[in-house]
Amino acid sequence: MKTILIALLALLSCDLMAQPHASASRMEERIKKLGTFGANPEGGVSRVAFSEADLQGRAYVISLMKNAGLEVSIDAAGNIIGQRKGKNNNLPVIAFGSHIDSVPNGGNYDGDVGSLGAIECIELLNEGKIQTNHPLEVIIFEDEEGGLTGSEAIAGILGSNKLDLLSHSGKTIRQGIQLLGGDPERLSSAARKKGSIHAFLELHIEQGGILFQEGLQIGVVEGIVGINQWRVTAEGKANHAGTTPMNQRQDALLASSKLVVAINEAATSIQGRQVATVGKIAAWPGAPNVIPGKTEFMLEIRDLSHDRIMEVFSKVRLRAEEISKSSGVSFRFELLNENLPALTDKYVQQTIADAAKELNYSQKFMPSGAGHDTQDMARIAPTGMLFIPSKDGISHSPYEYSTAEDMARGVDALLHSILKLDLSGK
Amino acid sequence: MKTILIALLALLSCDLMAQPHASASRMEERIKKLGTFGANPEGGVSRVAFSEADLQGRAYVISLMKNAGLEVSIDAAGNIIGQRKGKNNNLPVIAFGSHIDSVPNGGNYDGDVGSLGAIECIELLNEGKIQTNHPLEVIIFEDEEGGLTGSEAIAGILGSNKLDLLSHSGKTIRQGIQLLGGDPERLSSAARKKGSIHAFLELHIEQGGILFQEGLQIGVVEGIVGINQWRVTAEGKANHAGTTPMNQRQDALLASSKLVVAINEAATSIQGRQVATVGKIAAWPGAPNVIPGKTEFMLEIRDLSHDRIMEVFSKVRLRAEEISKSSGVSFRFELLNENLPALTDKYVQQTIADAAKELNYSQKFMPSGAGHDTQDMARIAPTGMLFIPSKDGISHSPYEYSTAEDMARGVDALLHSILKLDLSGK
Repeated sequence: MKTILIALLALLSCDLMAQPHASASRMEERIKKLGTFGANPEGGVSRVAFSEADLQGRAYVISLMKNAGLEVSIDAAGNIIGQRKGKNNNLPVIAFGSHIDSVPNGGNYDGDVGSLGAIECIELLNEGKIQTNHPLEVIIFEDEEGGLTGSEAIAGILGSNKLDLLSHSGKTIRQGIQLLGGDPERLSSAARKKGSIHAFLELHIEQGGILFQEGLQIGVVEGIVGINQWRVTAEGKANHAGTTPMNQRQDALLASSKLVVAINEAATSIQGRQVATVGKIAAWPGAPNVIPGKTEFMLEIRDLSHDRIMEVFSKVRLRAEEISKSSGVSFRFELLNENLPALTDKYVQQTIADAAKELNYSQKFMPSGAGHDTQDMARIAPTGMLFIPSKDGISHSPYEYSTAEDMARGVDALLHSILKLDLSGK
Repeated sequence: MKTILIALLALLSCDLMAQPHASASRMEERIKKLGTFGANPEGGVSRVAFSEADLQGRAYVISLMKNAGLEVSIDAAGNIIGQRKGKNNNLPVIAFGSHIDSVPNGGNYDGDVGSLGAIECIELLNEGKIQTNHPLEVIIFEDEEGGLTGSEAIAGILGSNKLDLLSHSGKTIRQGIQLLGGDPERLSSAARKKGSIHAFLELHIEQGGILFQEGLQIGVVEGIVGINQWRVTAEGKANHAGTTPMNQRQDALLASSKLVVAINEAATSIQGRQVATVGKIAAWPGAPNVIPGKTEFMLEIRDLSHDRIMEVFSKVRLRAEEISKSSGVSFRFELLNENLPALTDKYVQQTIADAAKELNYSQKFMPSGAGHDTQDMARIAPTGMLFIPSKDGISHSPYEYSTAEDMARGVDALLHSILKLDLSGK
């Protein structure tokens, strides 16, 4: 019995290897075409959600999906859903996709690679005349860059209070969803039940330069990091910069500078991939001839482990107390945001790693430092993410770039993972 | 001969000691009265130059001067000049005074003490029926806080380009001078020739807490510090705060924070009273989730010695280069302002020190970290400044405060110095 099973698996595996390979030139051609919608004169795109360019880009993607034989619909949240029947349509769906909206003055790869890559998988299945056991679903999420709106709706966590927020397009999210053909009054119909999705996969460009710098081809994403943000306020004593001797000062900016350096030390003193950043600072009264009496800055710590985030933070607190004692400047920490880490599914991770290995692609397990629709999908389904290299780690910029070959390898690994998951009982 | 001279000097000295003592209560009463013009509801004054309150304050001071028998006039720059004849009016004048304009939301002592103190000297000379050899002149400078306008005119360095600048009153300086009774077209008539002033003295509150903290009564000012200001620009690389590993960052704010700490170390690593301050900072793009690619901050170094300022600066430059090498962040220094130190006259300094000693006042030689009209007067005359303690070192604030006794001691030391200079051949 065992021998037969191994032989069967070998046969299946052999079958999988026979899958058609993605067309690098088709991927590149479509990336370029999609990039014409909302193209900036200086390069890159501004295809913010709900804009005219977004509508044009969606129309293009929908036409590709229909041409590939998908049954296309728009859910109540405005997400584009493309369905392909499986051999057994009672099985839960295998879903995959990404988004095509961009940040203002963004690039042509963030979201686009995963969206067009999902469609490319369908093209390849068509070309290989492969029908999966599970039904398949390509999802093009709406308004990822504006706050994961589409995937929050699918995960059932889109609060109605968010609908009246103004988006970059100048429209509210409610107006935007209507514009896309969704129905904000029926949002709950877009939510999927836990168990209704066999697995969700997203192909995406890495947004740091890790794969690029290490010359690796596929990143197996272990999860989307948690993010804690604090507002730090330092209170010293404003005083005359000419008449106050150095040893009589309570300089809030000097103390804050020491803490910024200490934050960097706290994050790098522990082994691991945690990051800590101070991205914004201001000092008051803010005159060159007045010793700052007050500063405010933002501290952000990210890691796949919430405990690790708090470990770094407690080191920062400790150093702040020491600096306070020696400087007479007090620090106050105010937690503004806390997003817990969203881990991808271990089995799906391993499936992607095996798929990449079988395709002879070099690979690495890594966290995603940025947020993705996958983190919402992780609430209702086993998820996995595949990264491909991003030149110089640039993203959210007209300069973001991935080669056609890297994109094609990403699609191959995605499709191979889908086919492996299609055969798994999990 | 020598013995006779010593006996004569002893006699003179004895005479000097017979000078009447300043009235602490009169000083305090007049400080309070002057403080009613432009009084803020919450305390302190906003008696900015050329305002209605300034005009009222000047009218009050002019009335005090006239009542004290001074011949009062307004020069072409709008300065109030009060003259008192000497025994020999061919001798160059001994001048003393200060200003009565304030910063917005300022206090009742900065400038006021020296102005009312100068008038108090005249009251005392009248009471003691003392006529000096030299003619005397009380000068109430106009618009000190707006940029030493009145004393620049007397020193002959008020550029006509300054006349069209807008002052805190909302009027241009040209309009303001007209309002005070000056004549902007005849400014050069306000300029004094080098040699026409025997000595100029200014009584002022200290603006740091040095005398206050050390419990001393009189500060003998060695000079007004030089001030160099640089704009420092740090250029690194803006990047995603989530996806960029700690070791791949070129964080302009982290590097700048190290330099701010290094600036403090550079200033305190050398013995001396030099001060270095970073009073203003900004980081771009300035989002909590983006590693700053650029910062700009202001560096100010002050000292009585320009060489010392440049010594501190060269240490800062050296550290900046080191930080650059290890961080990949470049620094650019742009000199925005350079005010050279203005030293007071050694002989006048010693005269003040002797006067204070003879009056049994504790004293200290010290620099002035802030700018004063005296620095302009130093261009055309031997100058001296006397400081009195300022509670907690506070200035340019409604909370600035000096006791009536400290003010009276300041006036006594000022008058005693004037009388000693009146006898000196220098």
